[in-house]
Amino acid sequence: MIELHLIGIGTGNPDHLTAQATRAMNEADLILLPRKGSAKSDFADLRRTICATVLTRPVRIVEFDMPLRAADGDYAQAVNVWHDAIATVWHEQIAAHLPKGGRLALLVWGDPSLYDSTLRIAERLQSAGLEVTVKVVAGITSIQALTAAHAIPLNPLAGPVTITTGRTLRTHGWPVDADTIVVMLDSGCAFDVLDPRGITIWWGAYLGMDHQALEHGALAAAAPRIAARRAALRARHGWIMDIYLMRKEQVDGSH
Amino acid sequence: MIELHLIGIGTGNPDHLTAQATRAMNEADLILLPRKGSAKSDFADLRRTICATVLTRPVRIVEFDMPLRAADGDYAQAVNVWHDAIATVWHEQIAAHLPKGGRLALLVWGDPSLYDSTLRIAERLQSAGLEVTVKVVAGITSIQALTAAHAIPLNPLAGPVTITTGRTLRTHGWPVDADTIVVMLDSGCAFDVLDPRGITIWWGAYLGMDHQALEHGALAAAAPRIAARRAALRARHGWIMDIYLMRKEQVDGSH
Repeated sequence: MIELHLIGIGTGNPDHLTAQATRAMNEADLILLPRKGSAKSDFADLRRTICATVLTRPVRIVEFDMPLRAADGDYAQAVNVWHDAIATVWHEQIAAHLPKGGRLALLVWGDPSLYDSTLRIAERLQSAGLEVTVKVVAGITSIQALTAAHAIPLNPLAGPVTITTGRTLRTHGWPVDADTIVVMLDSGCAFDVLDPRGITIWWGAYLGMDHQALEHGALAAAAPRIAARRAALRARHGWIMDIYLMRKEQVDGSH
Repeated sequence: MIELHLIGIGTGNPDHLTAQATRAMNEADLILLPRKGSAKSDFADLRRTICATVLTRPVRIVEFDMPLRAADGDYAQAVNVWHDAIATVWHEQIAAHLPKGGRLALLVWGDPSLYDSTLRIAERLQSAGLEVTVKVVAGITSIQALTAAHAIPLNPLAGPVTITTGRTLRTHGWPVDADTIVVMLDSGCAFDVLDPRGITIWWGAYLGMDHQALEHGALAAAAPRIAARRAALRARHGWIMDIYLMRKEQVDGSH
């Protein structure tokens, strides 16, 4: 019997951890930490730093190599195959390190509910016949880190907000019925597909980390500035993770 | 010079507080706590409990009576007048208790960015000529508390999510371009306006609190169950705060 705790750890700042997350980490029998390619080694380091910062008892920590996602072929199919492979690796780690069951903790960037696959991979363990109970510990998302850094509201007064991805923005354009959108998982400046008139953007990269970068302004003026800064930061750090919020001025001029 | 810290405190569970929130509270010169009508006294009590739980030094705490919002007339105008009144009360409290400036902390349910007016009220202080720097500390929102309690993802795989209000759902119906929507600030079962076919709902009330309540299922079957439970809980506790996520089955049957 495995109690699987998916623990949201915020965006890279150990100060984002909630008291609940800290307790769940300390009460675990095993914490599994994924090792990724060298470009993302900052992430593995950050997870280690977080463990070193918040653990007050000697919890067993095991690192494992993350399978890689196929870069070609159908996107949804590649993701499915990749999730199967990750579930298999988890299964092996559980068999090796928790053969009699216990509490397993996984540290998830942001919150386990938002553009994260840990919940879907956990379902695969259950489908494979493993007796797993899943508990989720909420974490600060990059959306909250973005709005906090800019000190702005997410929604216009009593108005709706759409959260979407760079891929969807590129293929479908600005969502119908939305005045405010948040774009995540953008591999590079999907806002370029938009007519920038009337749109304001608030952008952030490496949110919550030491090298946090922020930009905001009218999209027409800010877009080239963000593109240039993004390219320079990516070259310097070897990777980038960014997110942005855009608001369209309403026809009546109010927000 | 006032440094105004708007601190997200999650949904009522002191365990939701981040390390950053706890530190910001302890470093404040003054914490202002609003007192509301008796129906919401649970909230004032919870804020006091949180202060008692996390403060490790004697920070000054002052309670003030929150102005009431006019229940009639134009909604947007009533909200504007109400925000002006709150800004005036803050201004008075600052003049009385921080005449030489300092760090003022306000505790915000959830996160200061999401359906909360504290940022807009803080702007009014700046417009009134007070020298105020605003700092935001992100908090766990009721959206994250909902998805964590149900252990479900917010977004379908790589898909968008729309966050909206009960009022907007009632007046505009299901938003175009959305498969998943989260409804907040619903004064009562706005999902009743929808054709329930193909829609699944995950509902939660008093999230993170001792009397947390959850329901989920096909909307057609769950709607009357939620309506009845909501009415009973509201009668028992004198108030209710709830939120729900709904997903529409896509034409191809996948999520």
